[in-house]
Amino acid sequence: MELVPMLSVLTGAVAMIFAGLLFVRVSRLPEGNPEMAKIAKYIREGSMAFLSREYKVLAVYAAVVFVALTAAMGIHSGVSFLAGAFLSLLAGFFGMKAATLANVRTAEAARASGKPAALLTALDGGGVMGLCVAGLGLIGMGTLYAGFQSDSVLLPTMLHSFAVGASSIALFARIGGGIYTKAADVGADIVGKVEANIPEDDPRNPGVIADNVGDNVGDIAGMGADIYESYVAAMVAAMALGLTLPVSILQPVAPGITDEVTLRLVAVGLPLFLSSLGLIVSMFGMVITRFLTHYPPAGVLRAALIVPPLLVVGVGAALLPQFGVSWAVLIALGAGAVGGGVIGLVTDYYTSMGPVRAIAEASLTGPGTNVIRGLAVGMESVAVPLFTLCAVGFISNHFLGLYGIALAAVGMLAGTAIVMTVDAYGPVSDNAGGIAEMAGLGADIRKITDELDAVGNTTAAVGKGFAIGSAVLTVVALFAAFNMEVNHVRVTNHLPELTLRLDDAKILMGILFGSVLPCIVGASTMTAVGRAAGAIVEEIRRQFREIPGLLEGKPGAEPQPAVIVDIATTAALREMIFPGAIAILAPVVVGFIGGPEVLAGALAGALAVGATLSLIMANAGGAWDNAKKFIEKGGMPGHKKGSDVHKAAVVGDTVGDPFKDTSGPGISILIKVMGVVSLLIAPLIALR
Amino acid sequence: MELVPMLSVLTGAVAMIFAGLLFVRVSRLPEGNPEMAKIAKYIREGSMAFLSREYKVLAVYAAVVFVALTAAMGIHSGVSFLAGAFLSLLAGFFGMKAATLANVRTAEAARASGKPAALLTALDGGGVMGLCVAGLGLIGMGTLYAGFQSDSVLLPTMLHSFAVGASSIALFARIGGGIYTKAADVGADIVGKVEANIPEDDPRNPGVIADNVGDNVGDIAGMGADIYESYVAAMVAAMALGLTLPVSILQPVAPGITDEVTLRLVAVGLPLFLSSLGLIVSMFGMVITRFLTHYPPAGVLRAALIVPPLLVVGVGAALLPQFGVSWAVLIALGAGAVGGGVIGLVTDYYTSMGPVRAIAEASLTGPGTNVIRGLAVGMESVAVPLFTLCAVGFISNHFLGLYGIALAAVGMLAGTAIVMTVDAYGPVSDNAGGIAEMAGLGADIRKITDELDAVGNTTAAVGKGFAIGSAVLTVVALFAAFNMEVNHVRVTNHLPELTLRLDDAKILMGILFGSVLPCIVGASTMTAVGRAAGAIVEEIRRQFREIPGLLEGKPGAEPQPAVIVDIATTAALREMIFPGAIAILAPVVVGFIGGPEVLAGALAGALAVGATLSLIMANAGGAWDNAKKFIEKGGMPGHKKGSDVHKAAVVGDTVGDPFKDTSGPGISILIKVMGVVSLLIAPLIALR
Repeated sequence: MELVPMLSVLTGAVAMIFAGLLFVRVSRLPEGNPEMAKIAKYIREGSMAFLSREYKVLAVYAAVVFVALTAAMGIHSGVSFLAGAFLSLLAGFFGMKAATLANVRTAEAARASGKPAALLTALDGGGVMGLCVAGLGLIGMGTLYAGFQSDSVLLPTMLHSFAVGASSIALFARIGGGIYTKAADVGADIVGKVEANIPEDDPRNPGVIADNVGDNVGDIAGMGADIYESYVAAMVAAMALGLTLPVSILQPVAPGITDEVTLRLVAVGLPLFLSSLGLIVSMFGMVITRFLTHYPPAGVLRAALIVPPLLVVGVGAALLPQFGVSWAVLIALGAGAVGGGVIGLVTDYYTSMGPVRAIAEASLTGPGTNVIRGLAVGMESVAVPLFTLCAVGFISNHFLGLYGIALAAVGMLAGTAIVMTVDAYGPVSDNAGGIAEMAGLGADIRKITDELDAVGNTTAAVGKGFAIGSAVLTVVALFAAFNMEVNHVRVTNHLPELTLRLDDAKILMGILFGSVLPCIVGASTMTAVGRAAGAIVEEIRRQFREIPGLLEGKPGAEPQPAVIVDIATTAALREMIFPGAIAILAPVVVGFIGGPEVLAGALAGALAVGATLSLIMANAGGAWDNAKKFIEKGGMPGHKKGSDVHKAAVVGDTVGDPFKDTSGPGISILIKVMGVVSLLIAPLIALR
Repeated sequence: MELVPMLSVLTGAVAMIFAGLLFVRVSRLPEGNPEMAKIAKYIREGSMAFLSREYKVLAVYAAVVFVALTAAMGIHSGVSFLAGAFLSLLAGFFGMKAATLANVRTAEAARASGKPAALLTALDGGGVMGLCVAGLGLIGMGTLYAGFQSDSVLLPTMLHSFAVGASSIALFARIGGGIYTKAADVGADIVGKVEANIPEDDPRNPGVIADNVGDNVGDIAGMGADIYESYVAAMVAAMALGLTLPVSILQPVAPGITDEVTLRLVAVGLPLFLSSLGLIVSMFGMVITRFLTHYPPAGVLRAALIVPPLLVVGVGAALLPQFGVSWAVLIALGAGAVGGGVIGLVTDYYTSMGPVRAIAEASLTGPGTNVIRGLAVGMESVAVPLFTLCAVGFISNHFLGLYGIALAAVGMLAGTAIVMTVDAYGPVSDNAGGIAEMAGLGADIRKITDELDAVGNTTAAVGKGFAIGSAVLTVVALFAAFNMEVNHVRVTNHLPELTLRLDDAKILMGILFGSVLPCIVGASTMTAVGRAAGAIVEEIRRQFREIPGLLEGKPGAEPQPAVIVDIATTAALREMIFPGAIAILAPVVVGFIGGPEVLAGALAGALAVGATLSLIMANAGGAWDNAKKFIEKGGMPGHKKGSDVHKAAVVGDTVGDPFKDTSGPGISILIKVMGVVSLLIAPLIALR
């Protein structure tokens, strides 16, 4: 177990080299004709412009928090926070760079070589993000652990600060990106599809570039930061519990080890070891997937999502006993992996099968019934995933206590590299379709990119299911780590342990308080999208009005996409401040004013409401989107694209857009941020 | 305090006499012309037909539960359950009888004597329900307490069983009535307003009678059962805590009383005493309100809702010190009363002011943005009410511990008689408007009934705010009572006390499990409305198709409303079974399989999600409804009734209908039912 830090840094480095190879391969592929290259350049420049302006805002935020943490908890805390944040930004930068190179090359591959080549290009483009997320996560955590392994005072603070750095970048990137992508999408659609009656991705529409930029900043950079933070937070929660749980609870991890120091070393190192194992298996999986591009994409991607976590359990079964680690660890790990698979399949069902057809049929009686049905599908879809998480929690807790729950979260995230690859594949192929349409490539090419895009929609929903499921388990583990940390500090200061009694009025009021927070984040992100979309609508209308011949498509009448990109960027960055601040400040304010009990209650309340609301939003949004596509593909004979029934389905999709891509992810990050921030400030409020 | 049972029975009896006088007065008023009388007869018969068929279903349910309770907990439990259930049914019967007499007489009063007379008639009609709910509640609780005051074994079981009786009737009446009213409303609107393009309440539409019946069975019988159960459950929670809390916690209630038996007598009697006081004050308020009908209805009704609870505190301040009861009781009571007022005002704001205008403006860009904005308003509206409840909880807990929270709930419900009167006034005036339209009374008369109806919409939303707020406080108190009861039984059986630790995996998993339940009830009630509405749409279409001359309005072409009423009744009664069974069986199954910890967690999770979801649904629904009305009244110049903007607002209203009248109330009852059922089964699962 002494070699674990080295193993994880090494695995991370291999992943980064792999990412570099994929990057080089993608960048050397042909870009297609000059029109395609021009469009791709607009998208790439818009995406990078957003990222650089977002990073400037985040630099200010990071500087403030760095000073505050250094003052309150020492320079090690401040630096770890910066490291956690910086690596997240780096992963986002590399990943988006690759994705914005791969989109046009995917379109060109579809044109020149057909579907398998296009699938491979999109997967390689997404793979850079997947490998960077896991690789940089492991390098960061491994380095930190290697340096401070033996310092039981600094290590926990540094781990928690690292996680807070990762979380807060994830929060802003996800909310800012989410607002951008949906504002651009809704804005472009309102003027383009509804008012001017021109098709989606029509080159005359000045908002189309911003829409495609949005896919990158929201679904690639934002999603990457989100998954990176889950990955880090799950490891941190498990390691924190390994440091603070009583020996009696940790003993079943390695029944043969009787020395406390060694036992804790195993318990703290195990999450890193298992994640390294997961990354190795995922890399093998990615290599194999590259040889399967001739098979139907839907099956390949589903297998890529579900197989690797299970493989990790198998490999673990072969290796772990050699270190004296018990089979109970495998059970917890396996429960997490299988649970993730079940959640993925259930999400798949709700967003692509029977329920989607039911929503399409409800559109027959108008948009009202479509929306009602979609919301009902969303609420119903909460049940199996949360029951599954209950089962995972019970099983892993039965064998290894709360540490087991943290390991289950690690197990669920073992396949992070490949999950993120498949997630990033989606927007790359979506972009490819947009470029093909704008550059006027033929219908047969558009058909290929459409198929790749449709698969991406479903895998995106599955990825979101994973993300929320692992977030819930991670928060449960963080919760336990918070309580342990509080009592650790209290005992050290000769105070009695604090029992968080569910029948304590402070806890009960905390629960009510916490349950409000996801609602505030949900409401503010939804209205933010509305406001930002409004600004975009105004500008697109202005361009159609003031640029002669634009709407008629006369040669020489060029739209000004950069103006729209700029408006969307400014609006998204402005609108992300309020919900972001709520998420980060709420636990701090509650903790310092109300003390650890109220904060614990607030975490529990936010967890309950956040888990349900974000699942409702993600799944209802996915289902509405696919119900619209179902009708467009002729699923409702007699009601094709443009019919009243289709229009009703578009209304549901419009509601679902901010649901699934802005508010839902924002709420799911909120609960993780609350968890890590609480854990970090636990020593400061423990004595209250 | 020995006279408390007698006082409460006496107060209840006076209320029933008052109700009888109002009933006689209303029934002697003229019914108007034969056409009005005929329509009113249809509505009355339809309502009573629903009630009698519903009661038959409930009789079977009650018989089964009676046998089960008698077998498990003794005949006293079974009989108390029946009493709680029977009195709820009785209140529903009287109240609906009065309301279905008052509707047509309100229309006739508007025609013959003008607005003040119409307002008075509608208020008197609603007053019967208000007085029956509070009066029968007090008579039942008082009688039970009078008979078993000194039997510390039987009394708690009987109180809990009585509350379960009240709850389960509330559950089925609210869900069944909610499905009926919205299925009929949506069904009649889809064919009438959308397809056949005829106005609301047009006599040619065969669904209009069912729509008006729905107002009675949902908003009168259903709402009455709901409020009756809150009223009973709040008292039961406080009394249960008075019986089981440690003396040290109860001592501040009456610091001068050193004898435990007397102290408990005071603590147990106080809720009944305060509720009796509340009923007396409410009755005075109702008498005074009858003299104020010449003032603007909106102000009169708002004052009627907010003043009585505050008056109770004043009267309490004069009386309580004489019994040795401390001022702390007044603070808890006052916190509840003021909190209820704040929640009422906030609800009023969100459903009639700025947010409504924002939703109307969002309709400019179509139904999608209207729906998004409405959902955001709903989520935002959760914050102040729940923060207010936190403050109420902190304050009342600070002075009197968890008993204080229960008293705050009693304080919030002190004005039940008048709150329910104002609530029932709404559907009576809504019906009056429908009858005026169908009978072809002039536009000036319709203007009066429209104004009364609009005020009713807002007060209905305020009433729902009260209902949910008091439900949340009551559940918190029930939660504490559950824990006390479990430990009481454990200690009696020489087992160690059970500490509900928030960091126990069983509790955490319970929270996740419980947070799913409101989603299931929400999803199943929303789809139930859709299915039931579909059946009604089919039948209305059939009648328009097969009855010659009906759609053209030819003389002699009569619709067959009774067929629609029958279909709606059958569908509603069938559809209420699943969500109702979930609510009642979930705590039983969880408790017996998972034990008290998992059940406690499930209660907390259901509370967090249920409180937020039901508030979101109630307030978003009210706001959408009023945004539509705002546009209809010319609030958006250039976009009148029938414009695209208005159509977009109608979509939001369609979504809001099941939100506010079916799923939202269903979820709010779910958490109360879970609370009382848990309390009842606590002794049976305490030893697990």
